[in-house]
Amino acid sequence: MDNVDRRHFLLAATAVGVSATPGVVATAAQPSAGHAFLYQHEPVPLPFKAGAVKGLSEKLIQSHWENNYVGSVKALNIVRSRLQQALTDANTPAYVYNGLKREQLLRTSSVVLHELYFANLGGDGLADASVRSRIAASFGSFDAWESEFRKIAQGLGGGSGWVVLGYNTQLNVLENYWMADHATGPVGTTPVLVLDMYEHSYQMDYGAAVAKYIDAFFTGIRWETAAQRLALTRQG
Amino acid sequence: MDNVDRRHFLLAATAVGVSATPGVVATAAQPSAGHAFLYQHEPVPLPFKAGAVKGLSEKLIQSHWENNYVGSVKALNIVRSRLQQALTDANTPAYVYNGLKREQLLRTSSVVLHELYFANLGGDGLADASVRSRIAASFGSFDAWESEFRKIAQGLGGGSGWVVLGYNTQLNVLENYWMADHATGPVGTTPVLVLDMYEHSYQMDYGAAVAKYIDAFFTGIRWETAAQRLALTRQG
Amino acid sequence: MDNVDRRHFLLAATAVGVSATPGVVATAAQPSAGHAFLYQHEPVPLPFKAGAVKGLSEKLIQSHWENNYVGSVKALNIVRSRLQQALTDANTPAYVYNGLKREQLLRTSSVVLHELYFANLGGDGLADASVRSRIAASFGSFDAWESEFRKIAQGLGGGSGWVVLGYNTQLNVLENYWMADHATGPVGTTPVLVLDMYEHSYQMDYGAAVAKYIDAFFTGIRWETAAQRLALTRQG
Amino acid sequence: MDNVDRRHFLLAATAVGVSATPGVVATAAQPSAGHAFLYQHEPVPLPFKAGAVKGLSEKLIQSHWENNYVGSVKALNIVRSRLQQALTDANTPAYVYNGLKREQLLRTSSVVLHELYFANLGGDGLADASVRSRIAASFGSFDAWESEFRKIAQGLGGGSGWVVLGYNTQLNVLENYWMADHATGPVGTTPVLVLDMYEHSYQMDYGAAVAKYIDAFFTGIRWETAAQRLALTRQG
Repeated sequence: MDNVDRRHFLLAATAVGVSATPGVVATAAQPSAGHAFLYQHEPVPLPFKAGAVKGLSEKLIQSHWENNYVGSVKALNIVRSRLQQALTDANTPAYVYNGLKREQLLRTSSVVLHELYFANLGGDGLADASVRSRIAASFGSFDAWESEFRKIAQGLGGGSGWVVLGYNTQLNVLENYWMADHATGPVGTTPVLVLDMYEHSYQMDYGAAVAKYIDAFFTGIRWETAAQRLALTRQG
Repeated sequence: MDNVDRRHFLLAATAVGVSATPGVVATAAQPSAGHAFLYQHEPVPLPFKAGAVKGLSEKLIQSHWENNYVGSVKALNIVRSRLQQALTDANTPAYVYNGLKREQLLRTSSVVLHELYFANLGGDGLADASVRSRIAASFGSFDAWESEFRKIAQGLGGGSGWVVLGYNTQLNVLENYWMADHATGPVGTTPVLVLDMYEHSYQMDYGAAVAKYIDAFFTGIRWETAAQRLALTRQG
Repeated sequence: MDNVDRRHFLLAATAVGVSATPGVVATAAQPSAGHAFLYQHEPVPLPFKAGAVKGLSEKLIQSHWENNYVGSVKALNIVRSRLQQALTDANTPAYVYNGLKREQLLRTSSVVLHELYFANLGGDGLADASVRSRIAASFGSFDAWESEFRKIAQGLGGGSGWVVLGYNTQLNVLENYWMADHATGPVGTTPVLVLDMYEHSYQMDYGAAVAKYIDAFFTGIRWETAAQRLALTRQG
Repeated sequence: MDNVDRRHFLLAATAVGVSATPGVVATAAQPSAGHAFLYQHEPVPLPFKAGAVKGLSEKLIQSHWENNYVGSVKALNIVRSRLQQALTDANTPAYVYNGLKREQLLRTSSVVLHELYFANLGGDGLADASVRSRIAASFGSFDAWESEFRKIAQGLGGGSGWVVLGYNTQLNVLENYWMADHATGPVGTTPVLVLDMYEHSYQMDYGAAVAKYIDAFFTGIRWETAAQRLALTRQG
């Protein structure tokens, strides 16, 4: 807690609905909304054992969670503290402030995307009939969806980025999105299935063999999670 | 339906399960979801008379809607057709396909953001008490929110980008986001108030005087729209 | 000189080969290289009268130079001072430091590109035979070059970016480059002809009529400048 | 040669100064310039044995060269062929054309940067006195340079990007640049020392331990190459 002062911690702890007193469980059924400037994010644990994902090693999953995801949480919290300082400093030019806002955007979406990714991993890769038919209704067939999703992923090999199946609430379309890095992303879209294509997601296990990683991901999708997200979007 | 040929309409109509026979009304009370590959977007008219926005000229608003927004709708529709062709062409490398997916992302978010922007413009600039208190709850005070929102906007002067007040559904925080261009954006976030900072939003009226444009925007915000969007997000 | 302390000034003055004593002219025939951390850039005046460019108004040119170019020079100098402070502060995380390095890159290339742009503007638009033949040798014909250069420019309409005819010294090819913003750019390439496609380059005169601006640019190219730059590159 | 027709090969072969007839050595002392549209790039072999770099495994270096560098060469050549087709197709909208130009920029700089990177690798990590003094003249001390270079690299860990020590010919400054991906880069700058920070440069050997990779890079810099590049730039 080096970079966060006690006051921040108390406020943040209240914001996320947990008690600041160790051992005392928060009573709130759902966390209340956080403070735009004071919010500090707590890392979400892996929703499965690091060694339990088919096709991806325990070492890779553990490093991915610990170094890349938790690393982004820590960076996000520090950037937020820096923003708060900068906001009260009249000497900070707007474009310098925005340099921090850019890092905030990048880290926020890194945190969000990683949490969505891990939550839709660790399953048996089998989509049930209702998910399959909902996807088929939008893409013509489930295979047509999978084919495009895999193609986007393949094209991101060797660099950074994400593939997102999402529901665009302004266009009312369930479609696949290409993202170049954490900071890219479709506005007003509910993510349904998220695939991390940064090289730290696969290099340790597969080197440059991107296609093998994509296969592994499909084998280990936790479709129940995607189904829950999909259920929150408008039906076709 | 100028930009959509009959075949596309029939396919799309079939795809979304409504009747393609003229005169037969679909029973769904709300528009059904579009087809991921066949969908073609129809431009949404300005929700006000082009000359009715305080502080922004009719000529500017009309050009912004016609050239930049409708231009993006047309481009999006053409890019979608190209993607459909490319998907069935086995010779298209994945990275060439992704070049089109990038343009799709850029144009989709341009369309979405412009529709959100015009819809939160053309008002009297006065936020009612409930909106003010909801924003104050997150930012400490309404003024603290406005101060950061304006600072981000100022820093984007002379380039491209957007400022978005949005509710991040993963972090449960209502906060301001900096965006470098249409393709940037926070994932899993519900947009509440959207400000276009591309130079075509103000150069014609204000030249490089960015601060005057930001003033004009605040004078003409249609807060009723922002309030409706905010009402759909979780309370703090 | 608000943001630069006296010591900096003296060092910077020495670095650019001028005397720090008012009235004493530096004897160096060419400015010596600047200091990586202490360097502060001086704005270069327009190489022509603001009203002397065919097809672009005095008001537009003056605003472009004063607000966008000089604005970037000022921002660059401030960002450089901030970097120097950050470098000596052990508490600055590397990714926060890089936020400033990103702004430095953006502003540096904005400054460089604007200086190159103004320097290849204000002419009669007529390329002499040697330039034409050198370009034709690379592109098949001078018209083929112009056609691609114009197409890239057209595609950048409504957003930000640059078109650069440049000589890639690693590939030994004279070719046209698309650039999304100041921070994009081909590595190891000598710029020969530079066209600013940010909307502040034309909106004031032409609104969204991009093609008219491109015509105006071609009418006012100072080809002598491009020829001098080309002469420094390897012959085909 | 699947994607390049015979005519292209002959032109390209001429362009790079080699004979199209196997076994016949080209007489040209230096390759002549290539054709902007017809040029096809030939991969440059590693300038050292893949297993000869201190601190980086043969497997990693071989995969980096073969999959990432040669992969980019192949992609660049295909994108160039696509551009040529698109240029003659009047139905190609300018923004679709630019999607290919963006990929061309990305792949061109990937090729250029990788060639520069491998060429400044495989040495003993010892800079001679003249290089050290030239760098010290710009950065205050050689250590100050190394410290900033390492900091930028550290901040790029977990994502993509490059660090470049380069001489900016417009500003006359030798300085370090941060680059977010292949397509970023300082305009009008001569690269002197180039460090690849894409995760494929180190994950296979070091996982997420970025600092160890940076150490390994410094141990294996071939300073003779950097010195030669530096010698071509203006003296301070």
